[in-house]
Amino acid sequence: MSASASTGMRRSVVLKRRPAAEPTRADFDIREEAIPTPGPDEVVTRTLWLSIDPYMRGRLREEKSYAAPVAIGEVMTGETVGEVVASNHPGFAAGDIAVGARGWQTHCVTPGDRLVKIEKGAAPLSAYLGVLGMPGATAYAGVTEICKPKAGETFVVSAASGAVGSVAGQLAKRAGARVVGIAGGPDKCLWVQDSLGFDECVDHRSLDLRQELQAACPNGIDCYFENVGGAVQAAVFEQQNAFSRVAMCGMVAQYNEPKPPPGPNLGFVIGKRVLIQGFIVSDRMERFTEWRAMAAPLVADGSLVYREDVIDGLDNAPDALAGILSGRNFGKLLVRVAPEH
Amino acid sequence: MSASASTGMRRSVVLKRRPAAEPTRADFDIREEAIPTPGPDEVVTRTLWLSIDPYMRGRLREEKSYAAPVAIGEVMTGETVGEVVASNHPGFAAGDIAVGARGWQTHCVTPGDRLVKIEKGAAPLSAYLGVLGMPGATAYAGVTEICKPKAGETFVVSAASGAVGSVAGQLAKRAGARVVGIAGGPDKCLWVQDSLGFDECVDHRSLDLRQELQAACPNGIDCYFENVGGAVQAAVFEQQNAFSRVAMCGMVAQYNEPKPPPGPNLGFVIGKRVLIQGFIVSDRMERFTEWRAMAAPLVADGSLVYREDVIDGLDNAPDALAGILSGRNFGKLLVRVAPEH
Repeated sequence: MSASASTGMRRSVVLKRRPAAEPTRADFDIREEAIPTPGPDEVVTRTLWLSIDPYMRGRLREEKSYAAPVAIGEVMTGETVGEVVASNHPGFAAGDIAVGARGWQTHCVTPGDRLVKIEKGAAPLSAYLGVLGMPGATAYAGVTEICKPKAGETFVVSAASGAVGSVAGQLAKRAGARVVGIAGGPDKCLWVQDSLGFDECVDHRSLDLRQELQAACPNGIDCYFENVGGAVQAAVFEQQNAFSRVAMCGMVAQYNEPKPPPGPNLGFVIGKRVLIQGFIVSDRMERFTEWRAMAAPLVADGSLVYREDVIDGLDNAPDALAGILSGRNFGKLLVRVAPEH
Repeated sequence: MSASASTGMRRSVVLKRRPAAEPTRADFDIREEAIPTPGPDEVVTRTLWLSIDPYMRGRLREEKSYAAPVAIGEVMTGETVGEVVASNHPGFAAGDIAVGARGWQTHCVTPGDRLVKIEKGAAPLSAYLGVLGMPGATAYAGVTEICKPKAGETFVVSAASGAVGSVAGQLAKRAGARVVGIAGGPDKCLWVQDSLGFDECVDHRSLDLRQELQAACPNGIDCYFENVGGAVQAAVFEQQNAFSRVAMCGMVAQYNEPKPPPGPNLGFVIGKRVLIQGFIVSDRMERFTEWRAMAAPLVADGSLVYREDVIDGLDNAPDALAGILSGRNFGKLLVRVAPEH
């Protein structure tokens, strides 16, 4: 990467073909071209960190979901933290750090209005892609607008060691709820309990998920922050209390399926007066900004705990995406595209 | 029935055994005993009309849903309109008409506080079990609190010729929405369009429900008032718009199933930011009263259209329940237990 930078070349990961199941490196091409120069009001950044998130799998499908799919031959979308190397926008100067530049590439040219400048030194730069970025803001929006956990209630979150789940559970804990995480494997469960401070963590690979969940939630489930779908969803839905709330955030367990599998019967929704609300944080950009301001001091003083899983080198981004869909990563998944200095 | 009344006997339908699938007459016993006399603050009514509603199937199951199941040997629950024949409650005198007395029986003794006196002559007495009763209030709550149809939006309601659906669609029409009903068979569809004034009605028995629904909803679906579940639910869910709302009211298509069948995958809920809210009108008794006051004049002047399907004789109530679950009735299903005069 640094070689490209010094030789004035930009390296991009572009979609070669749509993966049928788990994405692989062979579904992408690497393209090299000259580093662009900025047009009017544009900014060129050198990518330092690239965020890898489960939603990206949806962009590889032909069908439009809430955003247009990535076209064949197009650079793969993604949030980045980058250093400004050239700017024709009054808000940015060389050396500034900006988040929001999109794409799996070493350099990005983008209108300055689409970038947010961040204060150097307030928090580690990588945090702006996780706990202080889109995943953290997603957790904040889902917990405060949909789940609304109250003291004494039971709050369950799946993918609890992930970038969204880890923040969601900590926020529910701060609201006074009993917080139960669901995560894959003993290492993640241990971290969720010991480091994040959740009351319990259930391993979704356990032989009797239903029973373990029941033991962890003796008073039933009042809030569910849904990140995975599938068997976990079915087990949680069975144990929901009357007037419980479900923030539907993701269903990573099915993103590699060619066709969505059947879901749980919704009869319980009526009898138990359940609220299920799907949401996407990009509908609420004001919450994003609000969250960044609120959470940065909590990250700085260590009261909001997060964990990162860093993979080096842009070329490894496709493998990283495959890994996040199967839960191989542990913590917020990032690609270090270039060193910070 | 009138014989029982004159000889001082009460006739009740009690649960004999829990039906495995469609309930039949053999699942119930008829019990005869002396007409009770009222205790302190109690009222004895002579049942005129008994309401038959899909939720009653849930009371025959062993599992508790939102209300306790009917016990073996216990009188089957149900809303009634009755005439007061004896009263120890200051609010009621012989000859008064009261709604709310519960149970499949010719006479009911109940605390007066659980009865609502209705003004004779404001509307037909039977209407207090349908358009002015629990089904009408259910439609009102679901449309105004959950679906919130706006002018120009598309509102779909299943079981559109039924007691709840017919009111829900008329309310959405008044709010300016394009209203599409789903009903079983050409007669019901014709009535839904011609008499209720819905914009379209799709026959759920049609060979290509999805395609017909699409043709009837060229701009997609913004609100869904769900009464039936099953294949209809799956077809509607596929065509929902971003930010659409689903009022989950009933799933009559599955009430006779020993186990609830799988439901649609909920992935679409996230991408389309759908709201799904289960509700039961008895959580909102204040809406019930509000609705009765608001709707009685609309029934009286003919601007709220309703249709009744009347079956004579208490002993036929079990057959009536079987019929409503399979859609054999047409309009609000009532059992005439005794003549009004």
